[in-house]
Amino acid sequence: MLLRIAFLGFGNVGQALAALLQHKMPTLETQHNLQVQIVGVATGSHGLAINPAGLDTTDLLSIADSGGSYDVLHQGQPISSDDVPMFLARVPADLLFESIPTSPHDGQPAYAFDYGALERGLHVVTANKGPVAFGYRDLTALARRKGVGFFFESTLMDGAPVLATGREGLPGSEIKRIRGIFNSTTNYILTRMEAEDLTFDEALSAAQAIGIAETDPSLDIDGWDSAIKTVIAANVLMGADLRPSDVKREGIRGVTRHRIRELASNGQRLRLMCYAERDADGQVTARVQPEPVPADGELAAVQGTTSIVDFETDTLRRLSIVEHDPGPDTTAYGMFADMLNILRGRYRTAFTKE
Amino acid sequence: MLLRIAFLGFGNVGQALAALLQHKMPTLETQHNLQVQIVGVATGSHGLAINPAGLDTTDLLSIADSGGSYDVLHQGQPISSDDVPMFLARVPADLLFESIPTSPHDGQPAYAFDYGALERGLHVVTANKGPVAFGYRDLTALARRKGVGFFFESTLMDGAPVLATGREGLPGSEIKRIRGIFNSTTNYILTRMEAEDLTFDEALSAAQAIGIAETDPSLDIDGWDSAIKTVIAANVLMGADLRPSDVKREGIRGVTRHRIRELASNGQRLRLMCYAERDADGQVTARVQPEPVPADGELAAVQGTTSIVDFETDTLRRLSIVEHDPGPDTTAYGMFADMLNILRGRYRTAFTKE
Repeated sequence: MLLRIAFLGFGNVGQALAALLQHKMPTLETQHNLQVQIVGVATGSHGLAINPAGLDTTDLLSIADSGGSYDVLHQGQPISSDDVPMFLARVPADLLFESIPTSPHDGQPAYAFDYGALERGLHVVTANKGPVAFGYRDLTALARRKGVGFFFESTLMDGAPVLATGREGLPGSEIKRIRGIFNSTTNYILTRMEAEDLTFDEALSAAQAIGIAETDPSLDIDGWDSAIKTVIAANVLMGADLRPSDVKREGIRGVTRHRIRELASNGQRLRLMCYAERDADGQVTARVQPEPVPADGELAAVQGTTSIVDFETDTLRRLSIVEHDPGPDTTAYGMFADMLNILRGRYRTAFTKE
Repeated sequence: MLLRIAFLGFGNVGQALAALLQHKMPTLETQHNLQVQIVGVATGSHGLAINPAGLDTTDLLSIADSGGSYDVLHQGQPISSDDVPMFLARVPADLLFESIPTSPHDGQPAYAFDYGALERGLHVVTANKGPVAFGYRDLTALARRKGVGFFFESTLMDGAPVLATGREGLPGSEIKRIRGIFNSTTNYILTRMEAEDLTFDEALSAAQAIGIAETDPSLDIDGWDSAIKTVIAANVLMGADLRPSDVKREGIRGVTRHRIRELASNGQRLRLMCYAERDADGQVTARVQPEPVPADGELAAVQGTTSIVDFETDTLRRLSIVEHDPGPDTTAYGMFADMLNILRGRYRTAFTKE
């Protein structure tokens, strides 16, 4: 079987994914009789290319390395270098991997592009939180009408199978509460502060120095990234219909070295906790806030860029999933797993006796 | 859609499962148009019953409570009260839930009964470790030939989606190492010893007093139960073909209060760790042994009857799953989830483009 794929966005994650696909190709072919062919790549500032006969992964990665344009690889009728809608209308793919820069305030333009690709009948796999946080119901309903998959495992905990566990591991359960530590940057800052007695500014600079925090770190440290992820968890796994602005949100900007010391002397650590909870009326509410946790417990054991999610359900009292040491390659793996799960029809959930 | 089910074994777990099915029935019918009907129950010492028109859950649970025989509910041609093969040959079910007492040394008689039910074309869901530890390849191959499901989530970590995560959450990954704390009884004993400065015998008695340890606790404390579970993890998730006797095994019988104290003063705790590891030649080896772990880490945070599994893969560096506070109801949930996953065709793994 031949699966034709296209990349919309080809940054760190897209490149890691292309490399992973190249690495896994022999196994997929031997074990599953599956061939994957890249037929298109479109980027924001490095042009785009379609080739129905297949683009070579090594060529793509070498252009990515050298900072050149993909336009040189384009075959067939010319497309303007920045005409993404035309790219999406023409690329002869079965599945689109989308990972483009996106506004955290409305999920655009990824939301519109994902919509367009689904509308055309392509499976869509995204690592973008925006379209999911702002359009999960809309995009999933469209995918269902079109009979294709819309998966996004990498939007939460970097490719760890958190959404897959909700979808496949907890059938027939009602999730009553989700609790997590979802943002690596803030957790890294807090654990550096506690381990080395640093001020917030010192720990933030340390995180920026090794590339964990952005130059403008406000999305992370003010809890917005955590809020977006909490919304994804609540909407996908608890049937809520929240937007990031519905989340009661407090970040870690005000955390002092003094407070960290005081908690430590009291046998506690501070963690930026995310909650989605169903209240007695069935409504789901969400909040993000720094919170003291026992120093000898599992939440304090979540250090550095590690993340955790905790499900409380009506069937399993409590289940935790922990992901250690994430990176662009683990985000890429989440997209790769989504592709395989789409090929196994995991977006279809109907019950049948045989 | 109507799914007809039968129970082989109707102890704590079977009863909890019947109660869970009764509780979930309205939701399954409303949300999934699924009706589940119990058409047979067979037990070792309380008789058996088949009724093609359906057995009433409340009747079954009330006989279970009163210690009576299910024979009184039987309809149609009589079957001798202990003739399980005849029961399996006649019961008009689509799916068998099997949870009967079984030898930990060869998996019988559950292995033979599961084989017979699959041979007849029934889906089989078991909570029994024996048939899986001794017959995973054999039973799975038979299920595949017959086009039915053979699932057993509850054999490892009491219904937490550990096998589902391996099956659904890690496609295309190679698991290089599995590490876990799989046995609740020994973990309970070790954490009581460390928290209350008890001797091994005192902690064992405490565990027996509240029903966590058996009167003959040797299967647990000598590491045999851990070894069986490690074999299941290795064979199902790493493609190994081990038997419990292949596991290098050391239990906790020799652990002294002195050693626990000494470790504590050194910032450590003791845990009965299970390992399955692939060596450089691709061979999988397994071992079970008590091992010191850092007091502030995630393994020390696994206390009481909680259990943990850790996957190291070629794609995600490390992923942990923790189950808290298990019981017969969580084991029952694992079987319920297996049933729903079979109905969703999750035993089929072939890739297709649509």
